[in-house]
Formats: sequence, C-alpha cells, structure tokens
Amino acid sequence: MTDVLRVGLAGLGTVGGGVVSMLAANADVVAARAGRRIEVVAVAARDRARDRGLPLGNAAWFSDAAAMAADAGVDVVVEAIGGSDGIARRVVDAALAAGKPVVTANKALLAVHGAELARDAEARGVPLAFEAAVAGGIPVIKALREGLAGNRIISVAGILNGTCNHILTTMRNDRRDFADVLAEAQDLGYAEADPSFDVDGIDTAHKLAILAAIAFGRKVAFADVHVEGIRGISMLDIGFAEELGYRIKLLGIARRPQGVMGGRGISTRVHPCMVPATAPLARVDGVFNAVVAVGDHVGRVMLEGRGAGAGPTASAVVADLIDIARGRAAPVWGAGSGDLSDAPTVPIREHVGPAYLRLLVVDQPGVIADVAAILRDEGVSLGSMLQRGRKPGEAVPVVLVTHDAPEAAIDAALGRINALDSVLEEPVRIRIEEGEA
Amino acid sequence: MTDVLRVGLAGLGTVGGGVVSMLAANADVVAARAGRRIEVVAVAARDRARDRGLPLGNAAWFSDAAAMAADAGVDVVVEAIGGSDGIARRVVDAALAAGKPVVTANKALLAVHGAELARDAEARGVPLAFEAAVAGGIPVIKALREGLAGNRIISVAGILNGTCNHILTTMRNDRRDFADVLAEAQDLGYAEADPSFDVDGIDTAHKLAILAAIAFGRKVAFADVHVEGIRGISMLDIGFAEELGYRIKLLGIARRPQGVMGGRGISTRVHPCMVPATAPLARVDGVFNAVVAVGDHVGRVMLEGRGAGAGPTASAVVADLIDIARGRAAPVWGAGSGDLSDAPTVPIREHVGPAYLRLLVVDQPGVIADVAAILRDEGVSLGSMLQRGRKPGEAVPVVLVTHDAPEAAIDAALGRINALDSVLEEPVRIRIEEGEA
Repeated sequence: MTDVLRVGLAGLGTVGGGVVSMLAANADVVAARAGRRIEVVAVAARDRARDRGLPLGNAAWFSDAAAMAADAGVDVVVEAIGGSDGIARRVVDAALAAGKPVVTANKALLAVHGAELARDAEARGVPLAFEAAVAGGIPVIKALREGLAGNRIISVAGILNGTCNHILTTMRNDRRDFADVLAEAQDLGYAEADPSFDVDGIDTAHKLAILAAIAFGRKVAFADVHVEGIRGISMLDIGFAEELGYRIKLLGIARRPQGVMGGRGISTRVHPCMVPATAPLARVDGVFNAVVAVGDHVGRVMLEGRGAGAGPTASAVVADLIDIARGRAAPVWGAGSGDLSDAPTVPIREHVGPAYLRLLVVDQPGVIADVAAILRDEGVSLGSMLQRGRKPGEAVPVVLVTHDAPEAAIDAALGRINALDSVLEEPVRIRIEEGEA
Repeated sequence: MTDVLRVGLAGLGTVGGGVVSMLAANADVVAARAGRRIEVVAVAARDRARDRGLPLGNAAWFSDAAAMAADAGVDVVVEAIGGSDGIARRVVDAALAAGKPVVTANKALLAVHGAELARDAEARGVPLAFEAAVAGGIPVIKALREGLAGNRIISVAGILNGTCNHILTTMRNDRRDFADVLAEAQDLGYAEADPSFDVDGIDTAHKLAILAAIAFGRKVAFADVHVEGIRGISMLDIGFAEELGYRIKLLGIARRPQGVMGGRGISTRVHPCMVPATAPLARVDGVFNAVVAVGDHVGRVMLEGRGAGAGPTASAVVADLIDIARGRAAPVWGAGSGDLSDAPTVPIREHVGPAYLRLLVVDQPGVIADVAAILRDEGVSLGSMLQRGRKPGEAVPVVLVTHDAPEAAIDAALGRINALDSVLEEPVRIRIEEGEA
C-alpha cells in the first residue's frame, strides 16, 4: 500500500455522500488517528451527471462498481449501495477476490451472506468491516466484538430501527394513529416509500442477526429470526401500556435462555415489546437507537446514539477505514469461522414470558369468566385484568396481563378466545420484557 | 511469541484477582476471540501465603514484580497494582524496556506519566493498553479512540466515579447527609478508608484527563484539570435541585469552548453539577458510570455501565489482552505522540455558564436587594430567585439561579455577597450544565 490509503467508494447516496464529506471535512483528524491520509480516489454511482455538491476532487469515475473494486489504484473498497444481492454483492466479491479490505454499511448483505463472505475474507486474509451496518454511529459492533470480547454474553437487546422508534414515539406523544404517522414520516423522508423493511421488522432482524452472531460466537442465522413488525400497534394499546407503566418499543432481542436445548440454544426475536417505563430502553425516543448487552463479567452495558443519517453512518464507515489504515483487524464475526458454533435457534414457540393480551369483547355477563376459564385451562396464569368503561351490549376493550407463560399456551388460549362469539376481533398480544430492556 | 499468550500479572487485588478468575472461567470464549489461549503464567503480589481462592494453576510466583515483567517466560504484562509511581511505574517501565505489551487499569499512572509512557511504548513499538483505567467495564477508551475516531469531538462528559455517584444517589434517595452516607459506604467497602481520591474528585480528574487527551488528540494534562469534590454538597442543595428540576452529579467535562483562545483551548473540569432531571446523565444512578461524547458527525453517543468491581474491570483488561493476542494496536493516545497537539487548557475563570447560588441569610428587609444589586453590578443576570420560609430575624436559605455568566463575575459577586453582614455562611455555587449532560 502507498502512504495514502486509497478508497474506492461504490454508491453516492446518503451513506456514500456522508463518507466523502466527512473524509474531506476531518482530513486532519482522520490522518492523525489513521497514521496516514485516507482519500477517496475512485467512485462508482449511477448518475455521473448529477451534481451532488460533494467534494470529490479528482476521484476517478467508474460506471462499473465491480471494475472499480478490482482497479489497481484502489486499496480499500467501501460498499454503500445496499441490498443483500445484485451489484452490492458483486462489488464486495470483486474486492475480496482482489485481496482488498472491504467496508460496508450493508446489514442485509451481512445478515444473509455473512457466513460465506467471512470465509472469503478469511481466505484472502483481509478485513470485512461493517460497523455502520448496525445502529449507525454507535460503535456497537466494536464494543461487542472487541470491547466486551472476554465475556460470555447473556443477552443483547436493542432499538435498532430509527423509523419504527420515531413512529412509536410520535404515536405516543401526539396521540396519532400508525397510518397517519407513517404517512407523515414518508413525506418527511424518515420512512421509505415502501416502508415494509422498516415497519415489518426486517431491518431490525438483519441487525439482530448480526449482533447475535457476534455476541454468541455462532454462525449468522437471519432466516431463524422470529420477526413481527409494528403495523398492528394501535393507540388503544399505547394508552393501556401507559396506564400499566410500560412503553411499547420494537426490540430485537437475542439471548441464551436457561434450561432450553441444554443451554445451547439462542433465541432471536424481533417484535413489539412492552418495557417498563423506567427501563433504560423505554427512554430512548425518536430516531435514536440503543443496545443493551449483558455480559457474565461486565454486567449490563448500554450504548445509545443516532442509528441513521449521513453523519452517524459516515462516522462508523470512517472508523472502519481508520482501523484498516492502522492495520487493526478482527475476524468478521469476532472469532474465526472455524471457531463459530452451530448453536441452534430456539423457536419462538419455546419462549416463556409475561404477555399483555387485549381483547375487544361485547360487554355482557360471562365473557370475562369464559376468557379466564380458557386461560386457566391452557395453564396461563393471570397477573391482572382491566376492563375500561361499561357499555352493556356494546364493544369494550379488556386487557389481561399474564405471569410468565409458555408461548404455546398463550397461542392455544388466544385461538380459543378468538373463537368465542363475544370476542369481536383477533386478540392483540404484546410480549412484556422486564429483564432485557 | 508462542501460540499461547503468556500473561505476567502484577497485583492480585480486586483487579488482578478478577482477571485470573475471568480468564479461567471464560477460557474457551477468550481463545475463540483471541485466536489463541491467554494464560496467566506468572504472578507477583505482596503476600504469597494468603489464600485468595484464585485458580492460579502453575503460575510462577515472583516477589519482585519488575523482575517478573522482564522474565523471558512472559509475553505481556498486566499491571494491577495502582498508584502513579512506585512499584506500578517500575513494572510498566520494566515491561516496556523489555519490549513487552502492557495492560493496566492504572488511571493515575496514565494521567500523570502518560505522555512519557506513550513515547516509551512507541519507541519500543509495543501497545500500552488501559481500557480498565476509565469507566471500568464500559469500552469507552476503545469507543473514543477507534469507534468515533473520524469525528472532531466537541465535548466529552461523564460520571466517572462510582463512589461519588453512589453517595449522591443515596443522599437523594434516603435524605441522608454526606458524612453519614460516606461512613456507611466505607463500612460496606464501597469507599476507601481514606476517601479523598474519590470524594475530592481526584479519581474523576485522572479519568477526565485521559478521556480529554484521546478525545481532543492532545497531550494529557492532568495538572491543568480544575477539580472540586462533593464534600460540600448538602441535603439542602439536593432538595433545592429537585425543586428546580435538576439532579446533582459529579461530572468530569472536557470541551472546546467556542470563541475562547481562538477555538484552540480545551476546558477540563471536575465539579458537582446541576443537570436537568431529564438529561441522560441525571438518570445514571448508584455505582454506574456513563460517558456522553458529542462528535461533529456522529452527534451524541452515550455509554453506560459498571465503572468498578472485579468483573467489569477484568472485562476491560481481558479485552485489551484479546486485542494484543490478535495484534490489534492503537497509539496510546489515539494518535502518535508527534501528532498530539499542545492545545492549551482553558482556565476555569474563563468558564461561562449558568449557576445555582445558595446563600444563608438573616431574614430581614433589604437583604435580597443588596444581593441583587451586587449581582447586577458584577454583570450577573438572574434567571430566578427562591426564598424558602419566612422567619423574620432568623437564618433562611435563598437560592439564586443565574443566566449564562462569566465565572470571574460570579466569583467577584460571591466575594462581595459573602462580606455582607446579613450573609451567615459562605455562599454555595453549583454550576448548571444543560448541554453536556
């Protein structure tokens, strides 16, 4: 390598543009910390004619990003295109094949193809860095993979999608419905035109799969993540959550549950949770992300910051570039591929925990008794019950909070409850997380 | 180096014992992440006869820690003795002289002699790692030095001493006086028999000096840190803080104030602060530590966790050992000694900010007028004034909250106020921090 670390940048959207701007604005700071200058010498993006207002200097322009990755004038490749396949994958493959370090912000790519990419990077002996893929500017990959590396991790949980957290925060603060807040977020550019990656929990699941692999030293297993999104969250449930002392957050949670699968299994789940209003994650609002990791020696560590946007994402990409400039490298998943376990994923039906159940029932004698009998028969023990308003013959919401109960028992009970004539719509179930948040 | 990373451990107190236990308990996890086994092969401590209940295996025993550091059977030296000079310094010098990496938890050593030690480590080309020196198990050194390395840091502030935070939290929760809570903390082992390092703010100042050097890329300057401790905090002021919507926390704060010293100066100060009850640092209670860093691109990042104790400290030491085993190294201060600036320290008299002032005055006509006139004459603008209780002729507390005011103006005003006959004891001044917390 030359004295300057020569960066080839694929993609000039929010992430790529942010990297160009940051490297230009903080060239002195970066050079001092990297021990040499880091310069974008080549870029590849779709539309060359468009003026992005970026300080691109004399960077060479490539219309073929994979060709750029292979070009001899490039020392390290930053992939800022996105998507688990297609051109993003080809750029990364081309860079690794050419024996070049890769930095990417691409959580989908890592979550879906990360095991294979790690083997490729190891075979070539080059780093594949992806701090920006999870929780934006928060150095959570580095914290888990290096900073807490001596710990046996017990759990890692986080608010990993700023769009969902913004929507849930705004619903609560402004007492507005999901659809209304989502539409506004789309207008403001906080949410994509097709919001499903965010609001259906897929983005969070990509990130959780990555965190779980690093935290538990096992092969990344995105397909095994249980995923539910936030489309079903209503103001009614947000209101009841308040009343009960909870906040509703979309969390990604990975843990090694005691006494399941001989203690080997890892549960990985993404779904709306009720967390105590006093829990650290309950207070992480708006576009902020946060991760809570619990290690056997360090105890609970929380990291909080901005999870998206040009500046925070660039901060993570540039940190990876500085590591590469200094020759600092970690195995892609914290340990070498050969040292990663095949620990199985605990299926969601093995989950045990308390839950909030909310029904809409006809206000008539005997309904609560029927519901309570079903829960008793299925072995689900009730912590509290709450009926709001008295409207004989009309629809009223009823809230039930269970003690720790097996997921399967709650499923069975909800199936039977839903079949009751007096139950007017499918019951809502939101799992309560006291411990991980 | 051999396949095993052979550790020589100086000191078998809380830190050293924690390291021995953790390396034994998590040998498999550590080996996977380090790429090889990490074993304590030699120890040096004062009393060989004492049974510490530690899994020391066949570790060689040295009565002379410096001799152990130089021993050919040791690859890396962990210094867990403490103190800025004496044996701790000799062990580190001996290790560096022998060209061996050093891991230490010793904040005093780094804060006082860190510039010289960094040059020695650089000259030998070996890492000198000290994650455990600041905020225990929270990987804040790594976060600032590597994870946020591309940022121009605007400020870094933290709760860095668990003893002080425990005392302040307990005073507030239990409505008990400082002396009472301190005595209990000493009985419980949370505070030292000689508590001055903690309660007088020196420990926090050591840690802040380290954080400031890394955050701002300048030479460590412990002697320049403005230091005040928490002995003067009374229940009266804790109560008023509550009433005004604040919490009292001992913070270490480093920032580059706008428009002072041509923007080059760095202010570093440790003192009790009033922080808004809603600020993230206000909610960090008990023995927890937390650091808030603000970077020009990443924005605000907060890290929170346990700042002391065997487990958290060992977690940080073992992380440093894993970095060394993997060959990952950063310059001691984030950039090479030659790249560190001589940015001057902004003296506390240049501080500008709001303050809480609390007087004890004789309740008689004209006192408030006299005080208000002095503040006006010194150019200190008042935001609010609060007098509790009416007891004509007797002592009553009066609280004044200023707008942004120069430190020197408040000093001058307090000097004149203290000289008034109607003012019965030296006024209390607690700076208000809205922004950094």
